[in-house]
Amino acid sequence: MTKIAFIGLGIMGSRMALNLLKAEVPLIVHNRTKDKANELIEKGAEWASTPKEAIEKADIVFTMLSTPQIVEDVYYSDQGLKAGFKKGTLWVDSSTVNPSFSEKMAEEAASIGVRFLDAPVSGSLVPAEKGELIFLVGGTKADFDEAKPYFDIMGKVSHFLGENGKGSSMKLLINLLLAQSMATFTETLRLGEAMGFPQTQLLETLLNHPVTPPILAGKKSKWINDDYSPEFPLKHMHKDLHLVAETAFELNRAMPLANAAKEVFAQAKQKGLGDLDLSALYKSIE
Amino acid sequence: MTKIAFIGLGIMGSRMALNLLKAEVPLIVHNRTKDKANELIEKGAEWASTPKEAIEKADIVFTMLSTPQIVEDVYYSDQGLKAGFKKGTLWVDSSTVNPSFSEKMAEEAASIGVRFLDAPVSGSLVPAEKGELIFLVGGTKADFDEAKPYFDIMGKVSHFLGENGKGSSMKLLINLLLAQSMATFTETLRLGEAMGFPQTQLLETLLNHPVTPPILAGKKSKWINDDYSPEFPLKHMHKDLHLVAETAFELNRAMPLANAAKEVFAQAKQKGLGDLDLSALYKSIE
Amino acid sequence: MTKIAFIGLGIMGSRMALNLLKAEVPLIVHNRTKDKANELIEKGAEWASTPKEAIEKADIVFTMLSTPQIVEDVYYSDQGLKAGFKKGTLWVDSSTVNPSFSEKMAEEAASIGVRFLDAPVSGSLVPAEKGELIFLVGGTKADFDEAKPYFDIMGKVSHFLGENGKGSSMKLLINLLLAQSMATFTETLRLGEAMGFPQTQLLETLLNHPVTPPILAGKKSKWINDDYSPEFPLKHMHKDLHLVAETAFELNRAMPLANAAKEVFAQAKQKGLGDLDLSALYKSIE
Amino acid sequence: MTKIAFIGLGIMGSRMALNLLKAEVPLIVHNRTKDKANELIEKGAEWASTPKEAIEKADIVFTMLSTPQIVEDVYYSDQGLKAGFKKGTLWVDSSTVNPSFSEKMAEEAASIGVRFLDAPVSGSLVPAEKGELIFLVGGTKADFDEAKPYFDIMGKVSHFLGENGKGSSMKLLINLLLAQSMATFTETLRLGEAMGFPQTQLLETLLNHPVTPPILAGKKSKWINDDYSPEFPLKHMHKDLHLVAETAFELNRAMPLANAAKEVFAQAKQKGLGDLDLSALYKSIE
Repeated sequence: MTKIAFIGLGIMGSRMALNLLKAEVPLIVHNRTKDKANELIEKGAEWASTPKEAIEKADIVFTMLSTPQIVEDVYYSDQGLKAGFKKGTLWVDSSTVNPSFSEKMAEEAASIGVRFLDAPVSGSLVPAEKGELIFLVGGTKADFDEAKPYFDIMGKVSHFLGENGKGSSMKLLINLLLAQSMATFTETLRLGEAMGFPQTQLLETLLNHPVTPPILAGKKSKWINDDYSPEFPLKHMHKDLHLVAETAFELNRAMPLANAAKEVFAQAKQKGLGDLDLSALYKSIE
Repeated sequence: MTKIAFIGLGIMGSRMALNLLKAEVPLIVHNRTKDKANELIEKGAEWASTPKEAIEKADIVFTMLSTPQIVEDVYYSDQGLKAGFKKGTLWVDSSTVNPSFSEKMAEEAASIGVRFLDAPVSGSLVPAEKGELIFLVGGTKADFDEAKPYFDIMGKVSHFLGENGKGSSMKLLINLLLAQSMATFTETLRLGEAMGFPQTQLLETLLNHPVTPPILAGKKSKWINDDYSPEFPLKHMHKDLHLVAETAFELNRAMPLANAAKEVFAQAKQKGLGDLDLSALYKSIE
Repeated sequence: MTKIAFIGLGIMGSRMALNLLKAEVPLIVHNRTKDKANELIEKGAEWASTPKEAIEKADIVFTMLSTPQIVEDVYYSDQGLKAGFKKGTLWVDSSTVNPSFSEKMAEEAASIGVRFLDAPVSGSLVPAEKGELIFLVGGTKADFDEAKPYFDIMGKVSHFLGENGKGSSMKLLINLLLAQSMATFTETLRLGEAMGFPQTQLLETLLNHPVTPPILAGKKSKWINDDYSPEFPLKHMHKDLHLVAETAFELNRAMPLANAAKEVFAQAKQKGLGDLDLSALYKSIE
Repeated sequence: MTKIAFIGLGIMGSRMALNLLKAEVPLIVHNRTKDKANELIEKGAEWASTPKEAIEKADIVFTMLSTPQIVEDVYYSDQGLKAGFKKGTLWVDSSTVNPSFSEKMAEEAASIGVRFLDAPVSGSLVPAEKGELIFLVGGTKADFDEAKPYFDIMGKVSHFLGENGKGSSMKLLINLLLAQSMATFTETLRLGEAMGFPQTQLLETLLNHPVTPPILAGKKSKWINDDYSPEFPLKHMHKDLHLVAETAFELNRAMPLANAAKEVFAQAKQKGLGDLDLSALYKSIE
């Protein structure tokens, strides 16, 4: 039976791996800090002390890491994936990275005979937990078909979008829309408060209005309870906006609004709010 | 039977007045240029050659004008409302203006014994035509109740939001969210095209995604057909964003994102796209 | 001998009036709060308890007020200028206002037979004190020539720039450049500190470099001593940037950078720094 | 006698190398395309067909390249510097890059026993030609002293600013100030034209005013003659602003104004103006 390695057990990765385990997929896991793997190990996952060790024992590897730099580390380091990859292995990178990085890693993988899918996910903590993520996938159709049973366990739908880089591209577009919605809604909410409306009235009226993206309704309780425990950490969205800016630079596109939103997130991060949920922008735009 | 004066017969006003007429409300109409009133006159509306004449014969007046300056002209000019108002008349201003302007006009009206509601509407051409507008109303509850039967004819719901200015305040918040959504979605759409996605694939994927406000789906055909005939003219949205900036200035609020979006609309208007639908931002962010 | 009325005795006006007094110009002064006039009265200026009283006794009136709204109040109020103006009087408005406001007031003045110059000044506290201001003047050449002897007392140079509004126009351009320089220099200074350079090294290197406007060198001691006593209050510059935004709106010009800088000043004002010198942006961009 | 290799013979590098040659410094040159080296070869420089060949014959190497990626290529490629470096060689990189890149290359160089200075220059075509550049240098004082005689030939002053990265850091700050000045001045100039001032009057008044950086006066003839032949190509400034954004991201600094200016340059580049002088922003902000 196909053995899966899963590397990167943060907020998202830990839930995704757990769903694989529940579906009785043979699983070997690795994370920079072992404590995040404990629950999975108790429930039957095998522990690998390095990425190299993980991939040596597996047929397919999923990586779910927070920045392109960490993906590079996991791949290139002494005990990294590159050192352990067998020819023909399928590497599915679900990290949110810039498209040109996915393209570069796909080429790098191909140069050592490894197949590569960029397969970032749309959805944060709760969909990850429920197995309701959306996979956005770039690569070959054959590789997509091979990985699809696992996407189906961890998600509710998976889209094959074309060649390598296309998964990461679509992911960036979606996160950009989410970031913009969050930032502009928060700024508007604060203006409404300054106009004299109670916060609850504003949330009732504006969150249900068709000018507001439905996804924001999911944050209502965070604003009401002033509790910003992270589902999607603010600093990760800031990083995603930075990847958008890099991609726009590479593609020769001016994006004044994306960059303005990036700096609103930067101000919040500079104030020390980076580890909170992205809805904590509300505390920054005070 | 209560006679209604309706002043301002543009894209919105002409549809609203027609719905009153269809409901057999006795109606007297005025517009700066008479040709826009012809259809209404044919269908039974009385014509008034000045605002003064209109209000002298009516018990309630609705105004639906495009800028605060035009509202002032209609009120203060020689043959304006002020010259004709009887004590106790109810003035319902459905123009989109800044809240402090509504407050000022309410005070002005009170000083000559006239009651005032700021009652701007959410919704553009099609809802106006179908009588499905949303009225956002500031003033006294008693005046709101008196006007409500007419709101019910022209709209599907009317919200009483508090004292004068609150209707205009909520309207600005909603238009701000719409403007931001349009501007950021368009910028994102153009990035997606530069990434190599076909426009149709992007519209399919992104318009149905919960990160996108449902209202934008109504613009899909405009993008696909490259036809930007106006439902909500771009220049009016630019004006609304300018009112937001003024209001933020008055309330001592920094709004970097609202101002950035304002300038994206300004660039489009500077390129001569002001009379097209606001979705024509797509032609500006090329 | 020609008698001069001077209305508005703030940071700038008090110094300007004092220079007229030192030059033995017969002077009648007015200010909303009398205490700011005490020094001038002691030194020989006559006190007028209202603008009306001031202008009734004078041949030329200078106004030096902080916003267009205050100019309107001083003109239109019961005991305002309009109530006291004699035909043929010359009104020199040195307030920083938007050009369309100057044009409007010039028309208003003309309608009651009063001549009008918009004559804002370039230069803040120290040049005002030393009589080294620069007058930027719009109106007729004959009126300019009549006022020039007084410009020469209060300033080192006066430019006749064309019809009414042109003085205010040039003033806005200069203040816009100053605001932009201050805001971008401060942001750059803070980046330099984050790079690890000591503040003093940055100030030494960057203030003397040809990429930096010479005027900023005058703020060096404020940064070094962390003392932001006002020469040019931050809130006034914010107001000027708001006038720029209004003017750009009227002239159909997109100005993304001016608006971005406006919001940086707005953030500082929102934090309560408005009464400090505009160099206190440094405390806001922390 | 010490032999110098000079790699990168663009607008700047070709003039710098020529000055070394005129000062009778033994010189070996390389460029991606040989034609740019012809004049130097005629005047006595030796040609190297690869970076490797150049460095094998030299004691000190200067690189003057347009992006960090090209520096990496010149270093890491098969026939690159790394393949030819002798232990103890001094590498002086005068390219404008981000500080963290300089730090990384310094470490990389150290790992193979090569000494490294980041030594970008302030000044464009004309100062390069006249030998009046300003060198901004990071590294060890001993290495700086060794390179100083060559800095003195190519420049009028050289600043030792501290450890590796400090030269690149100061360079970015200066270019950021220049970019901001150019962008905000251009936007202001266009507003002034819309106000009705002739371009020549604006240039006369504003370029000589202390709110404007002296360096901009050097662009006056470009605006007057509508001739934007490149001294400092617009696309390079856009790249520098991108490096600023990357550096701010790394240092956790929000920089809304730097990012707004970056996008103004991006719009100009997107319109095809990238190869013109950066003053061609005037054609973009039309």
